[in-house]
Amino acid sequence: MISEEQVRATLARYVELVGAGDMDGILALYAEDARVEDPVGKPAHVGIEAISRFYREGLGRLDATARLDGAIRATRGCGAVPFCVDLDWAGQARTIEVIDVMEFDADGRIRSMKAYWGEANMVARGQP
Amino acid sequence: MISEEQVRATLARYVELVGAGDMDGILALYAEDARVEDPVGKPAHVGIEAISRFYREGLGRLDATARLDGAIRATRGCGAVPFCVDLDWAGQARTIEVIDVMEFDADGRIRSMKAYWGEANMVARGQP
Repeated sequence: MISEEQVRATLARYVELVGAGDMDGILALYAEDARVEDPVGKPAHVGIEAISRFYREGLGRLDATARLDGAIRATRGCGAVPFCVDLDWAGQARTIEVIDVMEFDADGRIRSMKAYWGEANMVARGQP
Repeated sequence: MISEEQVRATLARYVELVGAGDMDGILALYAEDARVEDPVGKPAHVGIEAISRFYREGLGRLDATARLDGAIRATRGCGAVPFCVDLDWAGQARTIEVIDVMEFDADGRIRSMKAYWGEANMVARGQP
Protein backbone atom coordinates (compact mmCIF):
# COMPACT_ATOMS: atom_id res chain seq x y z
CA MET A 1 0.00 0.00 0.00
CA ILE A 2 1.44 3.38 -0.91
CA SER A 3 2.41 5.77 1.87
CA GLU A 4 0.54 8.81 3.10
CA GLU A 5 3.27 10.97 1.54
CA GLN A 6 2.89 9.29 -1.86
CA VAL A 7 -0.89 9.70 -1.74
CA ARG A 8 -0.53 13.38 -0.84
CA ALA A 9 1.99 14.02 -3.62
CA THR A 10 -0.14 12.27 -6.24
CA LEU A 11 -3.30 14.15 -5.26
CA ALA A 12 -1.40 17.46 -5.47
CA ARG A 13 0.02 16.43 -8.84
CA TYR A 14 -3.45 15.50 -10.08
CA VAL A 15 -4.80 18.99 -9.36
CA GLU A 16 -1.76 20.54 -11.10
CA LEU A 17 -2.37 18.40 -14.18
CA VAL A 18 -6.08 19.23 -14.24
CA GLY A 19 -5.15 22.90 -13.98
CA ALA A 20 -2.71 22.55 -16.86
CA GLY A 21 -5.20 20.58 -18.97
CA ASP A 22 -2.56 17.85 -19.33
CA MET A 23 -4.71 14.89 -20.39
CA ASP A 24 -1.78 12.51 -20.95
CA GLY A 25 -0.40 13.37 -17.54
CA ILE A 26 -3.76 12.81 -15.85
CA LEU A 27 -4.34 9.47 -17.57
CA ALA A 28 -0.83 8.26 -16.65
CA LEU A 29 -1.88 8.46 -12.98
CA TYR A 30 -4.66 5.90 -13.51
CA ALA A 31 -4.51 2.11 -13.40
CA GLU A 32 -5.67 0.26 -16.53
CA ASP A 33 -8.74 -1.10 -14.74
CA ALA A 34 -9.60 2.04 -12.78
CA ARG A 35 -13.11 3.28 -12.08
CA VAL A 36 -14.21 6.94 -12.16
CA GLU A 37 -17.50 8.38 -10.85
CA ASP A 38 -17.75 12.12 -11.58
CA PRO A 39 -20.00 13.29 -10.08
CA VAL A 40 -20.45 10.45 -7.63
CA GLY A 41 -23.76 8.68 -8.20
CA LYS A 42 -23.55 8.90 -12.00
CA PRO A 43 -22.69 5.75 -13.99
CA ALA A 44 -19.00 4.92 -13.60
CA HIS A 45 -16.37 5.11 -16.34
CA VAL A 46 -14.56 1.78 -16.04
CA GLY A 47 -11.18 1.08 -17.63
CA ILE A 48 -8.57 3.46 -19.00
CA GLU A 49 -10.22 3.82 -22.43
CA ALA A 50 -13.55 4.94 -20.97
CA ILE A 51 -11.71 7.20 -18.53
CA SER A 52 -9.69 8.72 -21.37
CA ARG A 53 -12.88 9.53 -23.28
CA PHE A 54 -14.41 11.05 -20.15
CA TYR A 55 -11.48 13.43 -19.60
CA ARG A 56 -10.87 14.31 -23.26
CA GLU A 57 -14.55 14.93 -24.05
CA GLY A 58 -15.16 16.82 -20.80
CA LEU A 59 -12.24 18.66 -19.29
CA GLY A 60 -10.25 18.51 -22.55
CA ARG A 61 -12.79 20.66 -24.37
CA LEU A 62 -13.02 23.31 -21.67
CA ASP A 63 -10.75 26.24 -21.02
CA ALA A 64 -10.48 25.32 -17.36
CA THR A 65 -7.96 25.83 -14.60
CA ALA A 66 -7.83 24.21 -11.18
CA ARG A 67 -6.44 25.08 -7.77
CA LEU A 68 -6.26 23.45 -4.35
CA ASP A 69 -9.01 24.64 -1.98
CA GLY A 70 -7.69 23.54 1.41
CA ALA A 71 -5.49 20.86 2.88
CA ILE A 72 -5.19 17.47 1.20
CA ARG A 73 -6.35 14.74 3.58
CA ALA A 74 -4.20 11.68 2.93
CA THR A 75 -3.54 8.36 4.61
CA ARG A 76 -1.97 5.09 3.44
CA GLY A 77 -3.48 4.01 0.16
CA CYS A 78 -6.17 6.66 -0.18
CA GLY A 79 -7.06 10.29 0.29
CA ALA A 80 -9.36 13.22 -0.39
CA VAL A 81 -8.42 16.48 -2.13
CA PRO A 82 -10.54 19.65 -2.04
CA PHE A 83 -10.09 21.81 -5.12
CA CYS A 84 -11.83 24.29 -7.37
CA VAL A 85 -12.16 24.19 -11.14
CA ASP A 86 -12.51 27.61 -12.78
CA LEU A 87 -14.15 27.60 -16.20
CA ASP A 88 -16.52 29.36 -18.55
CA TRP A 89 -19.96 27.77 -18.59
CA ALA A 90 -22.32 29.03 -21.27
CA GLY A 91 -20.35 32.27 -21.41
CA GLN A 92 -20.30 32.83 -17.66
CA ALA A 93 -17.29 32.63 -15.34
CA ARG A 94 -17.99 29.77 -12.94
CA THR A 95 -16.18 27.86 -10.26
CA ILE A 96 -16.96 24.23 -9.46
CA GLU A 97 -16.07 23.22 -5.89
CA VAL A 98 -15.03 19.57 -5.88
CA ILE A 99 -13.64 16.99 -3.49
CA ASP A 100 -12.07 14.00 -5.22
CA VAL A 101 -11.71 10.83 -3.17
CA MET A 102 -9.12 8.43 -4.56
CA GLU A 103 -7.95 4.92 -3.79
CA PHE A 104 -4.59 3.70 -5.04
CA ASP A 105 -3.28 0.28 -6.03
CA ALA A 106 0.02 -1.21 -4.84
CA ASP A 107 1.84 0.44 -7.75
CA GLY A 108 0.63 3.89 -6.72
CA ARG A 109 -1.85 4.20 -9.58
CA ILE A 110 -5.40 5.48 -9.02
CA ARG A 111 -7.81 2.54 -9.00
CA SER A 112 -10.89 4.49 -7.90
CA MET A 113 -11.86 8.15 -8.15
CA LYS A 114 -15.13 9.58 -6.89
CA ALA A 115 -15.79 13.29 -7.41
CA TYR A 116 -18.12 14.87 -4.83
CA TRP A 117 -19.97 17.95 -6.04
CA GLY A 118 -23.53 19.03 -6.70
CA GLU A 119 -25.52 21.79 -8.33
CA ALA A 120 -24.90 24.19 -5.45
CA ASN A 121 -21.16 23.67 -5.88
CA MET A 122 -21.21 25.45 -9.24
CA VAL A 123 -20.91 29.09 -8.20
CA ALA A 124 -20.29 32.40 -9.95
CA ARG A 125 -16.58 33.14 -10.05
CA GLY A 126 -15.31 35.04 -7.05
CA GLN A 127 -18.35 34.33 -4.92
CA PRO A 128 -17.88 32.06 -1.91
CA MET B 1 -32.66 8.99 -1.94
CA ILE B 2 -32.35 12.21 0.06
CA SER B 3 -31.80 15.46 -1.80
CA GLU B 4 -28.61 17.44 -2.23
CA GLU B 5 -30.05 20.07 0.12
CA GLN B 6 -30.81 17.49 2.83
CA VAL B 7 -27.30 16.04 2.54
CA ARG B 8 -25.76 19.51 2.80
CA ALA B 9 -27.86 20.44 5.83
CA THR B 10 -27.07 17.19 7.64
CA LEU B 11 -23.33 17.49 7.02
CA ALA B 12 -23.39 21.07 8.35
CA ARG B 13 -25.39 19.93 11.37
CA TYR B 14 -22.92 17.11 12.01
CA VAL B 15 -19.99 19.55 12.23
CA GLU B 16 -22.01 21.78 14.59
CA LEU B 17 -22.78 18.81 16.84
CA VAL B 18 -19.14 17.67 16.85
CA GLY B 19 -18.15 21.22 17.75
CA ALA B 20 -20.67 21.27 20.60
CA GLY B 21 -19.63 17.83 21.83
CA ASP B 22 -23.28 16.75 21.58
CA MET B 23 -22.91 12.96 21.55
CA ASP B 24 -26.65 12.25 21.61
CA GLY B 25 -27.20 14.64 18.72
CA ILE B 26 -24.41 13.05 16.68
CA LEU B 27 -25.66 9.51 17.28
CA ALA B 28 -29.22 10.49 16.32
CA LEU B 29 -27.92 11.22 12.81
CA TYR B 30 -26.78 7.61 12.35
CA ALA B 31 -28.75 4.60 11.13
CA GLU B 32 -28.87 1.60 13.48
CA ASP B 33 -26.73 -0.49 11.14
CA ALA B 34 -24.30 2.26 10.12
CA ARG B 35 -20.60 1.77 9.53
CA VAL B 36 -17.87 4.22 10.60
CA GLU B 37 -14.22 4.19 9.54
CA ASP B 38 -12.25 6.95 11.31
CA PRO B 39 -9.60 7.26 10.06
CA VAL B 40 -10.38 5.43 6.83
CA GLY B 41 -8.40 2.20 6.60
CA LYS B 42 -8.77 1.36 10.30
CA PRO B 43 -11.21 -1.39 11.35
CA ALA B 44 -14.79 -0.16 11.01
CA HIS B 45 -17.20 0.45 13.89
CA VAL B 46 -20.37 -1.33 12.77
CA GLY B 47 -23.76 -0.72 14.34
CA ILE B 48 -24.99 2.08 16.55
CA GLU B 49 -23.63 0.58 19.79
CA ALA B 50 -20.10 0.31 18.46
CA ILE B 51 -20.41 3.79 16.95
CA SER B 52 -21.66 5.17 20.27
CA ARG B 53 -18.61 3.72 22.08
CA PHE B 54 -16.31 5.16 19.41
CA TYR B 55 -17.67 8.70 19.83
CA ARG B 56 -18.07 8.65 23.61
CA GLU B 57 -14.62 7.14 24.26
CA GLY B 58 -12.91 9.35 21.67
CA LEU B 59 -14.45 12.73 21.01
CA GLY B 60 -16.52 12.60 24.22
CA ARG B 61 -13.39 12.61 26.39
CA LEU B 62 -11.70 15.47 24.58
CA ASP B 63 -12.20 19.19 25.01
CA ALA B 64 -12.61 19.63 21.27
CA THR B 65 -14.33 22.10 19.00
CA ALA B 66 -14.97 21.84 15.26
CA ARG B 67 -15.48 24.23 12.37
CA LEU B 68 -16.16 23.99 8.66
CA ASP B 69 -13.00 24.33 6.54
CA GLY B 70 -14.41 25.05 3.09
CA ALA B 71 -17.53 24.35 1.07
CA ILE B 72 -19.56 21.21 1.69
CA ARG B 73 -19.70 19.11 -1.46
CA ALA B 74 -23.11 17.44 -1.58
CA THR B 75 -25.14 15.53 -4.11
CA ARG B 76 -28.20 13.25 -3.85
CA GLY B 77 -27.66 10.65 -1.14
CA CYS B 78 -24.05 11.42 -0.26
CA GLY B 79 -21.50 14.14 0.31
CA ALA B 80 -18.12 15.23 1.64
CA VAL B 81 -17.50 17.85 4.33
CA PRO B 82 -14.11 19.46 5.02
CA PHE B 83 -13.67 20.55 8.61
CA CYS B 84 -11.14 21.08 11.36
CA VAL B 85 -11.20 19.73 14.89
CA ASP B 86 -9.35 21.89 17.42
CA LEU B 87 -8.20 20.07 20.55
CA ASP B 88 -5.47 19.68 23.11
CA TRP B 89 -3.27 16.69 22.41
CA ALA B 90 -0.80 15.78 25.16
CA GLY B 91 -0.95 19.36 26.40
CA GLN B 92 -0.43 20.96 23.00
CA ALA B 93 -2.95 22.95 20.97
CA ARG B 94 -3.55 20.96 17.81
CA THR B 95 -5.86 21.06 14.81
CA ILE B 96 -6.86 17.93 12.92
CA GLU B 97 -7.85 18.58 9.30
CA VAL B 98 -10.53 16.07 8.29
CA ILE B 99 -12.80 15.33 5.35
CA ASP B 100 -15.76 13.11 6.25
CA VAL B 101 -17.44 11.28 3.39
CA MET B 102 -20.98 10.17 4.21
CA GLU B 103 -23.64 8.06 2.53
CA PHE B 104 -27.26 8.33 3.63
CA ASP B 105 -30.13 5.87 3.67
CA ALA B 106 -33.61 6.58 2.34
CA ASP B 107 -34.65 7.98 5.75
CA GLY B 108 -31.83 10.53 5.69
CA ARG B 109 -29.74 8.73 8.31
CA ILE B 110 -25.99 8.23 7.88
CA ARG B 111 -25.32 4.64 6.81
CA SER B 112 -21.60 5.07 6.09
CA MET B 113 -19.01 7.54 7.34
CA LYS B 114 -15.37 7.50 6.30
CA ALA B 115 -13.03 10.09 7.83
CA TYR B 116 -10.05 11.01 5.66
CA TRP B 117 -7.02 12.30 7.58
CA GLY B 118 -3.45 11.25 8.23
CA GLU B 119 -0.50 12.09 10.46
CA ALA B 120 0.35 15.20 8.46
CA ASN B 121 -3.21 16.48 9.02
CA MET B 122 -2.54 16.94 12.73
CA VAL B 123 -0.98 20.39 12.83
CA ALA B 124 -0.04 22.89 15.52
CA ARG B 125 -2.95 25.28 16.14
CA GLY B 126 -2.90 28.33 13.95
CA GLN B 127 -0.48 26.88 11.44
CA PRO B 128 -1.80 26.07 7.97
